[in-house]
Amino acid sequence: MTENQGKPALTPGRISSKRVYSGRIISVDVDQVRFPDGSLGELEMVRHSGASAVVPLLDGGTDPQVVLVRQYRYAADGYVYEIPAGRLDPGETPEACASRELREETGYTSASLLKLTTIYTTPGFTDERIHLFVAEGLTPGSSEREADEFLELYPVRLSEAVAMIRSGDIVDAKTSVALLLAYLAQNPK
Amino acid sequence: MTENQGKPALTPGRISSKRVYSGRIISVDVDQVRFPDGSLGELEMVRHSGASAVVPLLDGGTDPQVVLVRQYRYAADGYVYEIPAGRLDPGETPEACASRELREETGYTSASLLKLTTIYTTPGFTDERIHLFVAEGLTPGSSEREADEFLELYPVRLSEAVAMIRSGDIVDAKTSVALLLAYLAQNPK
Repeated sequence: MTENQGKPALTPGRISSKRVYSGRIISVDVDQVRFPDGSLGELEMVRHSGASAVVPLLDGGTDPQVVLVRQYRYAADGYVYEIPAGRLDPGETPEACASRELREETGYTSASLLKLTTIYTTPGFTDERIHLFVAEGLTPGSSEREADEFLELYPVRLSEAVAMIRSGDIVDAKTSVALLLAYLAQNPK
Repeated sequence: MTENQGKPALTPGRISSKRVYSGRIISVDVDQVRFPDGSLGELEMVRHSGASAVVPLLDGGTDPQVVLVRQYRYAADGYVYEIPAGRLDPGETPEACASRELREETGYTSASLLKLTTIYTTPGFTDERIHLFVAEGLTPGSSEREADEFLELYPVRLSEAVAMIRSGDIVDAKTSVALLLAYLAQNPK
């Protein structure tokens, strides 16, 4: 093992990396890491190429309709309400990915795409980041879903979507962050 | 491979499972899955035991102070602002985990713990769920951090924490969902 590779002494970060699983969507590395106090440890890290997700607003006003998708999620052993989302293609920008996923999953194209923020889904064990957007000025069209995507559109008012987060009917983290930020943007204090 | 094990015909879900990685925090399975249309496919699933996270409110009123932790996160290659959080011990309830992590990371014990919701961090590839709470009636004490936890306390007003989510200074998903829900609960429309 090469210690301190490409890092000045005591800068926290990677010392070495060993790939223990290479998959279709994710890979897993076991990395030797220098911590902020200079000590060394081993961390498991799920590597993911990142994704974009988008809140599609169907109309204006303070409580617009938002197009959710109700999607079968094996991880949750059932159906989950989400905003349209998907992985970045190689070389694709977050904006292009958000527009593509919106079109593929809902058929809509948008006149404007506003960035909300970028989140780490669960930084304890993965580097996955999801770029969150709001899409406005929607024009309907035909969707092109992937073979393993099972979803239907579920339009609700933004205030109803926030109520669904509070009641536990919406449980997806990216969806919750994006809807809550879109709601606060529409309803400034 | 045994098809349809323990499931009536065409119910979506697991057909079979193969563990491809067993680690310290996570394991990875490649599962044969029946989709809602009856078709079969293979999915990679990161298995995680789940976690609790807690918004510690230091005082009352409409804009209380909240105790964030600023923590080194290798996945993010730097420091990330989060709420206190950690994995469930075997057999531990989400409430007990939230109280324990609050005490270990901040030293505080709380008089009351209110459930916000439970989120799936990223249901495309992991079954990890995080139970979110608000802690009130805090009493200071001494913290007991784990060897690989590098964090300091960072108290801010709840409204400032929300501003940090909107500005991109807070990027952690569970932290964002919990703070935004706590903020809406303190500031009903």
